[in-house]
Amino acid sequence: MASIFSRIVAGEIPSYKVAEDDRYYAFLDINPVTEGHVLVIPKAEVDYIFDLDDDTLAGLTLFAKRVAASIRSAIPCRKVGMCVLGLEVPHAHIHLMPLQSEGDMDFHRAKLQLPAERMQEIATSIASNFK
Amino acid sequence: MASIFSRIVAGEIPSYKVAEDDRYYAFLDINPVTEGHVLVIPKAEVDYIFDLDDDTLAGLTLFAKRVAASIRSAIPCRKVGMCVLGLEVPHAHIHLMPLQSEGDMDFHRAKLQLPAERMQEIATSIASNFK
Repeated sequence: MASIFSRIVAGEIPSYKVAEDDRYYAFLDINPVTEGHVLVIPKAEVDYIFDLDDDTLAGLTLFAKRVAASIRSAIPCRKVGMCVLGLEVPHAHIHLMPLQSEGDMDFHRAKLQLPAERMQEIATSIASNFK
Repeated sequence: MASIFSRIVAGEIPSYKVAEDDRYYAFLDINPVTEGHVLVIPKAEVDYIFDLDDDTLAGLTLFAKRVAASIRSAIPCRKVGMCVLGLEVPHAHIHLMPLQSEGDMDFHRAKLQLPAERMQEIATSIASNFK
């Protein structure tokens, strides 16, 4: 069965897309830790990120670098942090988050509840800065 | 002034080294969140990870993949997680951590205090699995 992320890539489940190419896809985390919290995935459905072949993994990282630059252009922050946990959804994904302090990357705190209009505004802003 | 990590690479500050090549260096975090918590760095002293040139960033990721495999061989875990925060030491570094649950990647919890003998044992075990 296709992972929830493969179904997002296929357009069967809607997402706030921020970037896409032939191999990778980036969209807002629907339960964001911070505004501008993005997930970056390979379209290939592989569970564990370090099981990706070298070329796909290197490409994923470079795609994430470009997405991070667009997040930083759209959302004022000191840096964009990156995290891979990977024990819940069995489809490798990189969390990217704009950081003001190290404490911002806290998966234990209550997730933001943002209205759809705000989510779309953030996604559009990041997407428009994607190069 | 050289970063603390550059001084570690130069051998001016001791570290529990687990892997090294001409461009990258990996060693135990001295304040580990979990046993087997490793930092992977480029020898080039660049503050923000996404300021690394594409070739160095891709190489860092592939080096981290090899270190993650050796951590997983040495320390029983479901997966090895990866995180980059980067607001404290101004020298890009990837945290790698063996995970049993998503909650294991928690930078807010009290750090482990492991005796030097145990740190050396962990480092030796990971290093001996590095390919």
